[in-house]
Order: sequence, then C-alpha cells, then structure tokens
Amino acid sequence: MTSGKDPNRPSILGGPTIVLVEPQLGENIGACARAMLNCGLTELRLVRPRDGWPNEKAQAAASGADLVLDGVRLFDSTADAVADLEVVFATTVRTRGMIQEFVTPRLAAERMRAHYAAGHKVGVLFGPERTGLVNDDLTLAETLITVPLNPSFSSLNLAQAVLLIGYEWFQTGDVPPAELLHTGQTRPATKAELVNFFEHVEGALDRTGFFTSPEKRPSMVRTLRNAFERMRMTEQEVRTFHGVIAALTGKRKGDP
Amino acid sequence: MTSGKDPNRPSILGGPTIVLVEPQLGENIGACARAMLNCGLTELRLVRPRDGWPNEKAQAAASGADLVLDGVRLFDSTADAVADLEVVFATTVRTRGMIQEFVTPRLAAERMRAHYAAGHKVGVLFGPERTGLVNDDLTLAETLITVPLNPSFSSLNLAQAVLLIGYEWFQTGDVPPAELLHTGQTRPATKAELVNFFEHVEGALDRTGFFTSPEKRPSMVRTLRNAFERMRMTEQEVRTFHGVIAALTGKRKGDP
Repeated sequence: MTSGKDPNRPSILGGPTIVLVEPQLGENIGACARAMLNCGLTELRLVRPRDGWPNEKAQAAASGADLVLDGVRLFDSTADAVADLEVVFATTVRTRGMIQEFVTPRLAAERMRAHYAAGHKVGVLFGPERTGLVNDDLTLAETLITVPLNPSFSSLNLAQAVLLIGYEWFQTGDVPPAELLHTGQTRPATKAELVNFFEHVEGALDRTGFFTSPEKRPSMVRTLRNAFERMRMTEQEVRTFHGVIAALTGKRKGDP
Repeated sequence: MTSGKDPNRPSILGGPTIVLVEPQLGENIGACARAMLNCGLTELRLVRPRDGWPNEKAQAAASGADLVLDGVRLFDSTADAVADLEVVFATTVRTRGMIQEFVTPRLAAERMRAHYAAGHKVGVLFGPERTGLVNDDLTLAETLITVPLNPSFSSLNLAQAVLLIGYEWFQTGDVPPAELLHTGQTRPATKAELVNFFEHVEGALDRTGFFTSPEKRPSMVRTLRNAFERMRMTEQEVRTFHGVIAALTGKRKGDP
C-alpha cells in the first residue's frame, strides 16, 4: 500500500508538527516524510534546507509520501518555524550541561498526546544530520527528548530519529491489541472439540502400544495434552489433525 | 560518537540475532547494521544477499558499525540461517490468512528479553525490501511481529523495521522477564530439530496418501508446520512426538 491518502481514515492523520532544522540531504528529508506518514504525521516544516526546496531526491526517497511533501512549509529561522506552536519538544543526543528536562520518546509521546487532545499546537525539533540542534534552538523547547540507545553508538540517522518519535506517538493512539491470533475464516476450537481430539490421539496410541507402562500413561498423556493446548488450534485445524491421525493409523477418508 | 567498540560496556551488546532474507540493497544492509548497533544488537545473518558479500555500499551506510558488519554470517537458505536458533520471530506487514500469533514489537521485545535471559538463542527474520517474507519462511517462526502503523501507509524501509524491533528490545533492558515458557530440565527445540520433525511427519503422511492432491500439499504442509510452531516444543517433546508418529505408523521401539 503506497497511497498516503485514504479518505476513510482521516482521524489518525495530523498530529504534532515535525520541524527539521537545516537538513542537509534531500534523501533524508524524503525518508523523514515517509517515516512521518508511516506514523500518521503529516505536517512538515523545514528551516533553511541546505539544497533548497523542492528537492528531487526528497521526492524519490519519500516512497509515495506525497501528502507530507506537498504540504511542506519553509522558514528562515527556527524561531519563525515554531512561532505559532504552543508546546515544543526538541531531540538531542548529547547532554550539554543544560538545565532542562530530558524525557524518553515514550514519555514525550504521552505528553504530546495529552496536549494534542487538549487542542494545543505541538511540534518537535530535529537538528542537522551531523551536528544536531544548537543550544539557541534548544531553548525554544520546553522539553528535550533523548532516545535511550547503546551509549557507545547512539548517533541516529535523521529519519530514524523521526521514526522513533512518530512510532511512540502512534502507539499512544487508538492502536490494535498487542496480541492477536489470526484465525481467518474459522474460530478457536472449543474445549469439547479439543478433548475429543485428545481422546482420538490417545486411543490410537493405546492400540499401537505407545504407552509402555500403565503407570506412565497419565504423565505421558499430560505431556501430549499440554503441547496440543499450547498449539491453540482452530476448529478447522482440529479437523485437519483428526485427518492426520486417521491417515497415520492407516485409515482413509470414507473408511468406517 | 561513532565507535561501536567500548570495552567498558560489553554487557549491553549481544541480544537477538537479526536475519535479513534476500536483502537487495547494500545501503540497506549497512543501515540495518547501524540501527542494530544503536540498539546494542551485534549478530547479523544474511540469506542470499542479492549483490553478494562483502558489499562496499553496506560499509559506507553503516556509519562505523564495523562490529556488526565484520561478524556477518552468510547462509544459502532461511532454514539454515535459523537452524541453531530456538526462538524465532518474523516481521510481516500483511495478514495473509495464516493462523499464527501476531504481536506488537513491544510485546515481542518483552518475550525476546525473557528468552534471552533464560539462555535461549533468539532470532528475528526480516524479508526482502519489496516483497517481505514468503510464507515458507514465516513457518519457521513461532510468532509474527506486525508494527502498528498508519494502515493507509504502513510499508517501512528495511532499516526502519530493524530499528523499531531493536529499539523495543533495548527499552526492555534491566527489567525482569515478563513471560517465559517453563521448560523444566529440557530446553526449547532448535529449528533444525523442528524441521527434522516436520519432515518425519510429512514423510509419514506422504506414504499414507494424506495429501490428496500435489497442488494442495504446500498449503497443507504450512498449516501443519504453523500449528506445530505455535506449540513451542521443547527438545524432549520433539522426541516424544517422533515416538508418537512412529507409533501411529505402526513402528515399535527397536524396529529398523
């Protein structure tokens, strides 16, 4: 799916404004746009992009995130770019001795969501690829975001930094449950269906002499049942496995 | 900070093995290596990289993540690449009607951490840039990971996908394991042990005429393998189930 426009799902788009200060490579701007739209973010502002704007390399790297690139707004200074925003976060790797609040992306995203829900205009600043934001830009933010990463190799690509902030933002929204067993056209087997299957297996094993001693049979049966329970079979799969047992014991479909 | 090697912080390195199946662009492999080291991950395996290995473009894009690139291991098949692993996750965007467990990166990371802490060998599969993993590769995983993202624009760059998994992995550090399958005196089966078991089952079913038509065999095999993957068998259970199959097909202990 490469279209960024889906009129049926307008509600998840929008979100905080992303502000890239003096981005150098068009490819990075495009990759940021793609990462933004992955996370439902659509508002991108650029402060003095090195190679001007528009930029063909940005278009190519955006992989179809036209919705974001078409709406880009250009600014001459960081102060201008955030002038109409009410709540501004800034991303920074290094602690530069500033007395400022540092938070993780996860906590920042929760705060962004709360502000956004209250109707406040929220933005996040990202600095140039090599140097990061200068201290004067950092002073435009109330809160600094630092991503917890390998301290001996913590320098993130610009689009990677945008993705992590956007990802955390998206996770604070209306996201699907964390775990889901997809069952397609069928449904989970009932316990009665499972027990019936267990008895089929165990009966077949009884007839082949699998259980070498009567004393060990109960614990062997428990081992097998536990394993099959973990399988969390669908109703359809139970039928398939009935067929497997029948086939292995030499019965064909249609046999009595 | 661009050095990946820091003798003072060995403890945060290591982690799950990242397996890239048929990666196309060297730049993407390099960007994955960088994202991995950002998150303290160091073990990278490549299955049939399109442009061969080593790859100069990967070096350039890795931005100093030599620690990862120098340790890359090459494999001819996905099955070989995961043969020694005990717990395998696979990333996939699309739901393809497979009956398999889907989890978020966050929940997956918690489980990875629990397994890793218990000494199990853990890996994560990523498919080729354009197409993603094929179904046969997905059957090598117990659990599928899908990143909750903008449903109308959810296709992630390969390195972005690796970063999100690595990022969630890193965030689970220094926390107690959340969930673990108790394995008692045994250990999780390796993928090689599982595949060997699958082949035993399928060979037995071939001989009984279970697969009614050659065209349907692949999808039937996938159904069975997916179900057995979900069972998360221990090494001991794999041996038990070998015995079950042998018993059902009429072989007794000691038979040739």
